Amino acid sequence: MTKEQIDINPTCPLPFSDNERILLGHGSGGQLSHQLLTELIYPYFDNPMLATGHDSALLSIGEQRLAFTTDSFVVSPLFFPGGDIGKLAVYGTVNDLAMSGAKALYLSCSLILEEGFPMNTLSKVLASMSQAAKETGIQLVTGDTKVVEKGKGDGVYINTAGIGVVPHDVYIAPQHIQQGDVIILSGDIGRHGMAVMAMREGLEFDNPLNSDCAALSDPIHTLLNEGIAIHCLRDLTRGGLATALVELAETAEKTFIVEETAIPVSEAVTGACEMLGLDPCYVANEGRFIAFIPAAQAETALTLLRDHSVSATSCIIGRVDEDNKSQVIYKTTTGSERLMQRLPGEQLPRIC
Amino acid sequence: MTKEQIDINPTCPLPFSDNERILLGHGSGGQLSHQLLTELIYPYFDNPMLATGHDSALLSIGEQRLAFTTDSFVVSPLFFPGGDIGKLAVYGTVNDLAMSGAKALYLSCSLILEEGFPMNTLSKVLASMSQAAKETGIQLVTGDTKVVEKGKGDGVYINTAGIGVVPHDVYIAPQHIQQGDVIILSGDIGRHGMAVMAMREGLEFDNPLNSDCAALSDPIHTLLNEGIAIHCLRDLTRGGLATALVELAETAEKTFIVEETAIPVSEAVTGACEMLGLDPCYVANEGRFIAFIPAAQAETALTLLRDHSVSATSCIIGRVDEDNKSQVIYKTTTGSERLMQRLPGEQLPRIC
Repeated sequence: MTKEQIDINPTCPLPFSDNERILLGHGSGGQLSHQLLTELIYPYFDNPMLATGHDSALLSIGEQRLAFTTDSFVVSPLFFPGGDIGKLAVYGTVNDLAMSGAKALYLSCSLILEEGFPMNTLSKVLASMSQAAKETGIQLVTGDTKVVEKGKGDGVYINTAGIGVVPHDVYIAPQHIQQGDVIILSGDIGRHGMAVMAMREGLEFDNPLNSDCAALSDPIHTLLNEGIAIHCLRDLTRGGLATALVELAETAEKTFIVEETAIPVSEAVTGACEMLGLDPCYVANEGRFIAFIPAAQAETALTLLRDHSVSATSCIIGRVDEDNKSQVIYKTTTGSERLMQRLPGEQLPRIC
Repeated sequence: MTKEQIDINPTCPLPFSDNERILLGHGSGGQLSHQLLTELIYPYFDNPMLATGHDSALLSIGEQRLAFTTDSFVVSPLFFPGGDIGKLAVYGTVNDLAMSGAKALYLSCSLILEEGFPMNTLSKVLASMSQAAKETGIQLVTGDTKVVEKGKGDGVYINTAGIGVVPHDVYIAPQHIQQGDVIILSGDIGRHGMAVMAMREGLEFDNPLNSDCAALSDPIHTLLNEGIAIHCLRDLTRGGLATALVELAETAEKTFIVEETAIPVSEAVTGACEMLGLDPCYVANEGRFIAFIPAAQAETALTLLRDHSVSATSCIIGRVDEDNKSQVIYKTTTGSERLMQRLPGEQLPRIC
């Protein structure tokens, strides 16, 4: 369906066959999510801000530059090692704002509660949100509560939207990635996804698996305050490191070269991934990001990042190459090269 | 639990017994919703903006005055006479912004989709949202999509959050209601709730029942542009006219006197309400508001409002009295007087 057809008649013949349905994979953050966005959602809401492919929209209102973002959280179980849905809902939105270089100011919170949900569990979730909001300095200023019948929800789903202020000299976006930039990863990958999966499946490992769920605003603001010219940032949520890299390479129309040997993965995550046949590059994180930084500032940036516990093991995992082929070349430990792809299907539903 | 206790330890002993659970009535917009907010949610997120009891938060960022609001929409069925969940999700947020006198600028949209939801139905909902956004001049700039397993949702739930700009000379809030204000109602009440209920219950009436689902921004901006000193506005969603009046009387610490004979109710809604034993004053609307206006400007305001189709049958239903008893005195058609109360339980779940 073209945009023109929609303009003429929004109830015009629909573009799908009757048996095309939403799959769990449409929520994966990978290839199916990408298709849903580009083939169905974007055509209806075509505007330049939505099309930037950024974690948050950049708005100009009067003299102010603002970032605006939203996420719904449907993670199961609600409490997992290292976090819970309340923390995720605050950190997730604070992190999306930080990925634009914005200082998070105001938060909305909307709850979809299932009939029969224990009040004490709700109270625990709210306490966790409250603590995360205080920690990150964001104020919850508006909200909404809906209740659905038993069997039409799953305890609680939380939506948050956030507003932040972007300094006038900060321009962080996929379009600003430049040849020669280094790609910094803020720490080891795969903890969040594997912690949730292990809990859901009742798996036990020698090394406990804890989610990396954390606020990323402090290290980002340190980089900005110290004059690091960040070209782009992306937090590595659904779809993991690989999907984030592929999306950015496509949006920026650049080639990235990434070294598998440089990517830190904990022993616990490696073991769990091997057992379950998963690639940690596609496992969700909730406290990790990649940064595209001019090579000349890489060492300073690493030093600054390593000073924050949340990014203490930051390292360089690759660079932006000279050709502009919108692709990610992945150099594996065995010396071979292949092109990275988006997460193809659904690895683990309801990870966040 | 006091705020101090939460500050010390957010996992301190919880204030509920184990068998206290979320009920459908907690989503009614009435008494149970009020309790949930005041006893559980507000204590965790105590701040002046949240405590205003307004439809949207008023924020100052630099020189800008902004309004920020959010709502989740879980209406069942998704399509009903006069509207659908997509229209509701856009109008609902645009209307909440309008109730602060804000011009709606930017919208976020987050979808929680149930596995197996037909793509064509999703397409219809998005087409409806797109049309409503164009009609109201709001731009969808950021979004999110999650998918939950079959049986953990109900087709689609939609969250929207919105940002609008509030002019520097506009101060609309419950606290600005003054003695001598007239209370204007923008049209007949109860259409939305009864249209949804009739469809859900398979009821048929001689007169078709259509939802009043509509954007309210145009008449509000006309009033402001023409210099009407609006003291307060409230759209009459969950809990209906009665709950809105009681909440405002309590927040403003004023007494309202409201005349039953002045409240327009269509024959269709009257008939349906009689059949089902409901009071139209508690039935949800999605295209009606009340305005508190200085008596001297009442006639001008009515003339301006009646020029818009959405508020063509606006009328005065009451006034703000001299004592300040935080109550609503309801003069019935039989000549008796009683105090209006919030909607006590749940009249109709998932009305919006």
